[in-house]
Amino acid sequence: MRAVVMQDAKLRVEEIAEPVPGPGEVLVDVLACGICGSDLHCLAHAPELNAATRVALGVELMDLTQPIVFGHEFVGRVAAYGPDTSQRIPVGARVVSIPALLREQTTLLGFGGPDLPGAYAERIVLSEQLMIEVPDHLPTDVAALTEPLAVAYRTVAKADLGEHEVPLVIGCGPIGLAVIAVLRLRGERRIVAADFSPERRALASRLGADIVIDPAVESPYEAWLAAAATDDPAQMALGTPAIGQLPLRPTVAFECVGAPGVIDQIIAGSPPGSRIVVAGLCMTADTFQPAQAVLKELDIRFAMMYTPQEFAETFAHLAAGDFHVAPLLSGTVGMDQVADVFDRLANSPSDAKILLAPTR
Amino acid sequence: MRAVVMQDAKLRVEEIAEPVPGPGEVLVDVLACGICGSDLHCLAHAPELNAATRVALGVELMDLTQPIVFGHEFVGRVAAYGPDTSQRIPVGARVVSIPALLREQTTLLGFGGPDLPGAYAERIVLSEQLMIEVPDHLPTDVAALTEPLAVAYRTVAKADLGEHEVPLVIGCGPIGLAVIAVLRLRGERRIVAADFSPERRALASRLGADIVIDPAVESPYEAWLAAAATDDPAQMALGTPAIGQLPLRPTVAFECVGAPGVIDQIIAGSPPGSRIVVAGLCMTADTFQPAQAVLKELDIRFAMMYTPQEFAETFAHLAAGDFHVAPLLSGTVGMDQVADVFDRLANSPSDAKILLAPTR
Repeated sequence: MRAVVMQDAKLRVEEIAEPVPGPGEVLVDVLACGICGSDLHCLAHAPELNAATRVALGVELMDLTQPIVFGHEFVGRVAAYGPDTSQRIPVGARVVSIPALLREQTTLLGFGGPDLPGAYAERIVLSEQLMIEVPDHLPTDVAALTEPLAVAYRTVAKADLGEHEVPLVIGCGPIGLAVIAVLRLRGERRIVAADFSPERRALASRLGADIVIDPAVESPYEAWLAAAATDDPAQMALGTPAIGQLPLRPTVAFECVGAPGVIDQIIAGSPPGSRIVVAGLCMTADTFQPAQAVLKELDIRFAMMYTPQEFAETFAHLAAGDFHVAPLLSGTVGMDQVADVFDRLANSPSDAKILLAPTR
Repeated sequence: MRAVVMQDAKLRVEEIAEPVPGPGEVLVDVLACGICGSDLHCLAHAPELNAATRVALGVELMDLTQPIVFGHEFVGRVAAYGPDTSQRIPVGARVVSIPALLREQTTLLGFGGPDLPGAYAERIVLSEQLMIEVPDHLPTDVAALTEPLAVAYRTVAKADLGEHEVPLVIGCGPIGLAVIAVLRLRGERRIVAADFSPERRALASRLGADIVIDPAVESPYEAWLAAAATDDPAQMALGTPAIGQLPLRPTVAFECVGAPGVIDQIIAGSPPGSRIVVAGLCMTADTFQPAQAVLKELDIRFAMMYTPQEFAETFAHLAAGDFHVAPLLSGTVGMDQVADVFDRLANSPSDAKILLAPTR
């Protein structure tokens, strides 16, 4: 079968072996697969990412002695069942799954070699137990957003947003836009978002951001503080009962950029008692002012993954039509265009989510 | 009256005017006042601290155009009531209070000038409403620990320690030791603590740390991981369901050093899903690896102050004898010795809490 493979920081389309479903596994035709910022990171910084995961988690994300087949945001169609399966979902039905295979050692899908391909390929193997059937009314391209929305769903869950808090989203790339969509899903009605790109600001508005700021023109923190200011003493900043009494609510900022310096900017802009949820993946060392974070008693929470439960909840919301995510879909390409799309995504700020349809 | 005043990074004893209690205020003879790390910070880094609080909170901590009278960890004896007071606590009774004065603008005590002296003075003025009476059975020097223990009480509260979590205390200066005392109060029975100083390690043991590590000899993180390791899959690391399965509990580290690089060391040593509570006050820029924090989904919480409620709860525990804090008390000095004690505390790691008895 055909697949897009990555080797030596280059993408090419080539023939690889058909995957064979083992016990409890299912062969699935890939219908669509999102191109993720993580894939771009892996192409540009594979050795650094491997080093980072080795230090953080004790395992390397990728085995770089072989080509890698990306693709972890997928929708497929059940093609055939392996042995020891209950076959509860009919052949021909569409499915999503968290990108993991439940073998002796649970393995992440989308970062393995040609023997365990991700969904930048015509077919993949999934664990039957993790598959969720996609109902007929849900378009394939929308179902393909389940994984990135699950990341945003967890990111927003980590924020523990209170009733009177005003969220600020710094960076309106795919993660920031997905965070806005989840905030909107939760009923937030004063979402402040900032991005230097006019295209992304327009997308942020379409996804439901209420106040959208160009940081080149005005301070997102001032716009946010204005939106968050209150005269209600019950909502004043906690944690500084004795130094002044600032008429500011503690609130929540989402770091969705992943560049050095952004966390410190958010620390500087945040009122006392605030929380900062970091979803951007900055691969270099970063500098910040701990005294500012201490004096303000900030809480910096880092988010990356999601639980199977969070993935399932996200999908249920998508299937129920609770999400307004059509603006996230920037288009669909075939395998031969993937390398060009990676170049474009790395340089152009105007796209949100581009899907690969492997058989297109 | 006599007071220790700070000016131009020097301490001296001099005569200042007697404070006069206003409406709702009380004149109090100071019996004892703890010498705090913040006071040392203020002596050595007053302009930097002012700049930091101006940026963080919109107000400067100190008015450096005048001498400053430190002292915010105090026990006093009610000497006389001002106008508009209910006088519920008899003259002659001992009292503690959060170091704040409820005037038109709530003002922090211990960082003001001679017109609003902290407790490095023979007498201070307190707000009647904030005073808590000290029962006869509680020694004055133990009651003087209320404020630093309240800081540790809040620090530990911010950690939200779960049943199976093993706390790690990095740094056994006064803050780290107070954190150990509060952990012990909460019934924690596997407390790991680390400090380069043998004297401080001995104090950590006396206060209740179970595993005490010299970082020059062995890694506190390895000792901690060994104490925290588990084979129970229900307690495995959250947040990384798909990359490996590490038999580690997420847990909580307390940063009680306040030096650059320590937060990054703790990030490197922490298992996925862990929380880091930062109580040390690092006044310089600091560097860390955000990718490590993201991959591990860490939560970094910064702690400094406490609420009046937390102060009252801490005092109630002290009065009830719940705390085992005698090892925290390193001695008591008079005003003339304060400058020497500051020098010693800045250079010697062997002391925990030294009290000033202004009339000694």
